Amino acid sequence: MTISAARHMRAAIMRQKQIIVDQLPVPEPGAGQVLVKTLACGICGSDLHMLKHGPRLAAQAAPGDRIMANMDFDHDVVMGHEFCAEVVAFGPDCQAAVKPGQKVCSLPVVLGPGWRRTVGYSNDYHGGYGEFMLLQEGLLLPVHDNVTADLAALTEPLAVGLHAVEMAQLGTGAESGTVPLVIGCGPVGLAVIVALKAKGVGPILAADFSPARRALAVAMGADEVIDPAANSPYENWHRAAILAPAPPPALGPIPERLKPAVIFECVGVPNVIDQIMAGAPQAARIVVVGVCMEADNFRPYGGITKELSLQFVLGYTPDEFAACLALIDSGKLDLSPLITGHVGLDDVAGAFGDLADPDHHCKIMIEPGRNS
Amino acid sequence: MTISAARHMRAAIMRQKQIIVDQLPVPEPGAGQVLVKTLACGICGSDLHMLKHGPRLAAQAAPGDRIMANMDFDHDVVMGHEFCAEVVAFGPDCQAAVKPGQKVCSLPVVLGPGWRRTVGYSNDYHGGYGEFMLLQEGLLLPVHDNVTADLAALTEPLAVGLHAVEMAQLGTGAESGTVPLVIGCGPVGLAVIVALKAKGVGPILAADFSPARRALAVAMGADEVIDPAANSPYENWHRAAILAPAPPPALGPIPERLKPAVIFECVGVPNVIDQIMAGAPQAARIVVVGVCMEADNFRPYGGITKELSLQFVLGYTPDEFAACLALIDSGKLDLSPLITGHVGLDDVAGAFGDLADPDHHCKIMIEPGRNS
Repeated sequence: MTISAARHMRAAIMRQKQIIVDQLPVPEPGAGQVLVKTLACGICGSDLHMLKHGPRLAAQAAPGDRIMANMDFDHDVVMGHEFCAEVVAFGPDCQAAVKPGQKVCSLPVVLGPGWRRTVGYSNDYHGGYGEFMLLQEGLLLPVHDNVTADLAALTEPLAVGLHAVEMAQLGTGAESGTVPLVIGCGPVGLAVIVALKAKGVGPILAADFSPARRALAVAMGADEVIDPAANSPYENWHRAAILAPAPPPALGPIPERLKPAVIFECVGVPNVIDQIMAGAPQAARIVVVGVCMEADNFRPYGGITKELSLQFVLGYTPDEFAACLALIDSGKLDLSPLITGHVGLDDVAGAFGDLADPDHHCKIMIEPGRNS
Repeated sequence: MTISAARHMRAAIMRQKQIIVDQLPVPEPGAGQVLVKTLACGICGSDLHMLKHGPRLAAQAAPGDRIMANMDFDHDVVMGHEFCAEVVAFGPDCQAAVKPGQKVCSLPVVLGPGWRRTVGYSNDYHGGYGEFMLLQEGLLLPVHDNVTADLAALTEPLAVGLHAVEMAQLGTGAESGTVPLVIGCGPVGLAVIVALKAKGVGPILAADFSPARRALAVAMGADEVIDPAANSPYENWHRAAILAPAPPPALGPIPERLKPAVIFECVGVPNVIDQIMAGAPQAARIVVVGVCMEADNFRPYGGITKELSLQFVLGYTPDEFAACLALIDSGKLDLSPLITGHVGLDDVAGAFGDLADPDHHCKIMIEPGRNS
């Protein structure tokens, strides 16, 4: 199929709070832009949240909110920001350094003079839930021939995990080495585990109610997994972090010596941050990676008495993104267990429902070219 | 008056959620302890909160909560942890390096083999709301003769401010110098301003609804004060933090260049943290110094999109405490405007009510020896 032959494309569109498959015009690449064909695109938890909470959040969005700034929920949005695609055609003013047919990944960003759009979270730049997209030529990263498109599409969620780990400013060393605890082993928590493992930090503790998710956590490198219904993640953390006691002081309580704690919040629903604050040890750093889009509750007093910190994180840098694709390209990691399903466009709406069951699914890949 | 002559003392006691003046036995100093006569003791906002919320918090206290651990609200507590006192008599095993009659400050802590108590927040170690207290000899810091007891009693609240500023990890330099914004100019916010000024950080912005508190903020070193009823503290911060723009990029929005933001939350009531998160600029650090003892609400999404951090802080180190007394001893600071009233023990309950009005009071000093 050539671009001139295809004036229309199919897409799974967010329209009036539903996912609807319909025809849309194939976009025309502008200056510095490349038309690509989507090979694989992951369904992100944020996409599920966006379908449910997006219209409310957009109505009250802060001026600096780069995600909501270009989302008008009265008009179509084609989501999908975790993708691998194939180069089809170049717009004006391109270098054409990669060839048509080349498999590529990219930050989901398109830039122009004075403006910026998030691919998949804007009305005018469709994401990977459609057959074709526009990307920024300067941001394209070629994918190794041996890497399948669905594995390459994991670059983006993996970069979210790596960024969270970088923001955690982990200590290293026998006594000062951070003992990380990952709360929630969905795609975000698993990406954090992969990044922690890649950086050689450990032991890595991870908690999830789902046996299937705990098995995935082990496959991705967790050293100890905890079912919070049976055991306290914080008691297990304590056992893993305890150091030999110092000589007791003449006066005062015997201070317990523990390695530093970093707890990754990878659930993203109300009350989880408060639960973590209640369980966290003294001076713990809590990195909030889960994207909770609802109003939430917490008790500051518990944070104060333990001098906790909360670091909210979002996205990744271009360097972190490139490092994750290089890690996947290297073939050293087997990320295939993370992908628990493949669907065509007609099954996207159904996949949104399926993802509510953590024991059956982790990451579902949309392949727009697939026959449903 | 000698200690042998005084078997009983007067104290303003927290008893059944009220402040009641009654007689209590004068405590006997144990090994390494010193009996002191209270000269001046500040009423802390935490004391007001403790009277109102303490019994509920104690019932649900976490195991590691060092404040609540030794508080049984069914029995008497004599509060008061911001004090200056006079040495009266030594218990066994003391060095007696300071002499009776010496004016001293101390961390409000007493230690024994394997245990620790907070003076003023325990049933067995009374604080400065009574005529006499026990202190730890090894923690006594002599006060300069020229410094009045009420000014020396400001050491403790000042140390809270200094600790918050140390935990903020402020940057310095023309481009990377943090521009601090202090939300709330009660005793905590004012202590933060004094500490920022002492460290040479600025410009210091401070916001409070009360004209009297804003005037105190200026007296303590704030460079710009804001009435949040008339102007947005965050817009004023933005004007103070903006740097000359970098050359515009070929593609993408022109990034605004701002100095780093640290916002000190010095109010300690529900909804303030959420308001600060809504107003804070990208990547701001929010240092939570105010002690909110109630359940609170916040919207994580706003923290996520701006990658904010929240650092909860409590208390101070012994070094920070000593540095604050040295600053007061130096005579370089005029902290007297902070003290807006002096009361005897019979007027403590009334002073708790008076402190609700920020336009009339900041710090009220209890002088147990004063005739009401």
